[in-house]
Amino acid sequence: MQVAIPLYEGFTALDAIGPYEVLSRLPEADIKWVAEQAGPKQTETNMLRIAADSSYADVPSPEILVVPGGFGTRRLLEDEPLLEWIRSVHETSTWTTSVCTGSLLLGAAGVLNGLEATTHWASLEQLEQFGAKPVKRRVVEQGKVMTAAGVSAGIDMALRLVDKLFGPEAAQAIQLGIEYDPEPPYDSGSPDKAPAEIVKVVRAVSEQMERDFEAEPAP
Amino acid sequence: MQVAIPLYEGFTALDAIGPYEVLSRLPEADIKWVAEQAGPKQTETNMLRIAADSSYADVPSPEILVVPGGFGTRRLLEDEPLLEWIRSVHETSTWTTSVCTGSLLLGAAGVLNGLEATTHWASLEQLEQFGAKPVKRRVVEQGKVMTAAGVSAGIDMALRLVDKLFGPEAAQAIQLGIEYDPEPPYDSGSPDKAPAEIVKVVRAVSEQMERDFEAEPAP
Repeated sequence: MQVAIPLYEGFTALDAIGPYEVLSRLPEADIKWVAEQAGPKQTETNMLRIAADSSYADVPSPEILVVPGGFGTRRLLEDEPLLEWIRSVHETSTWTTSVCTGSLLLGAAGVLNGLEATTHWASLEQLEQFGAKPVKRRVVEQGKVMTAAGVSAGIDMALRLVDKLFGPEAAQAIQLGIEYDPEPPYDSGSPDKAPAEIVKVVRAVSEQMERDFEAEPAP
Repeated sequence: MQVAIPLYEGFTALDAIGPYEVLSRLPEADIKWVAEQAGPKQTETNMLRIAADSSYADVPSPEILVVPGGFGTRRLLEDEPLLEWIRSVHETSTWTTSVCTGSLLLGAAGVLNGLEATTHWASLEQLEQFGAKPVKRRVVEQGKVMTAAGVSAGIDMALRLVDKLFGPEAAQAIQLGIEYDPEPPYDSGSPDKAPAEIVKVVRAVSEQMERDFEAEPAP
């Protein structure tokens, strides 16, 4: 079972690694890290590089596509090689999925037109420009398209994918394998639960980061 | 604030990337990926490489040490360069921490002698050989030593570290930034909650993986 995860300059590491950690534990999994040109890609913090081993041409028809998000997505909304690859993969995929603002790339490729979809809470309205109907849920499933909320939601989405593909025992076994029994010190993981002042600050930081990335050309 | 995360052949990606994703969002953070020799390190699945940029000598006194786990730890329990570096870093660190079986390396370095500690549930008894007292908790804090349970527990541990270092607002803001509002499809993340048959299977797979890694020399 081939799983393609595209990488690009400015992706968010956990968006990609959450689903990787779940899906790589399927005995049948063959994870492909894909980019226009293979090589190490920097995350949005510039403090971590993960290697893309394959080019788009090397991986034309994976069964599962997982598009991670990150501020770097904002520089790729008109990147035809990536969008064309997403469109082409989507024609034959079993599941086309995204984490966080990876859904903006699915949207730019035309995959979300007319569908409900989600993304990071601070970017939710941006989905409208692609004809998608933004919804505030952890994971949104529409036919074979699955979109997840921000960053850590990719772990929940991948467990759902395993459940769909191989049944509840497989999903439960992998959840136990990664000991995913969450116990955060606060209940502050969504804008409905976090203190209003903190939501305001995080939104402002997020908008500033977005402007910084848009102003700075891709390396 | 320098954060050192050692990498080695056969680490578990999410063990390292969970804490990275949390700690890298602190404005003061400087994350160092460290190995005996810099270069890309393979995870235990052999399907992902993450770049170590620094050698042990380059990072002698980070404020925070985060040791990730993985089956590769079993080949490092007598690796003097690594254990010596851990011991030396621990002398001056603000926090010495581990995720999953990373605590076996802290133990082998002598850091856990006489302390309560945790690790992946399937390896818990192994902590005893290092004079540690194994406890079944998500995160265990003993003075400046913090150990986390399996794989995904590093996210919870890192949020606690942020709370200790910078207070509840910082921890809540980062939790909101990574939208950590977990919603797994099942409640199967610990051996106390998962069906007994699944615990048995996952334990058997884990023990087999451990034997395979021990039998196969490090690359």
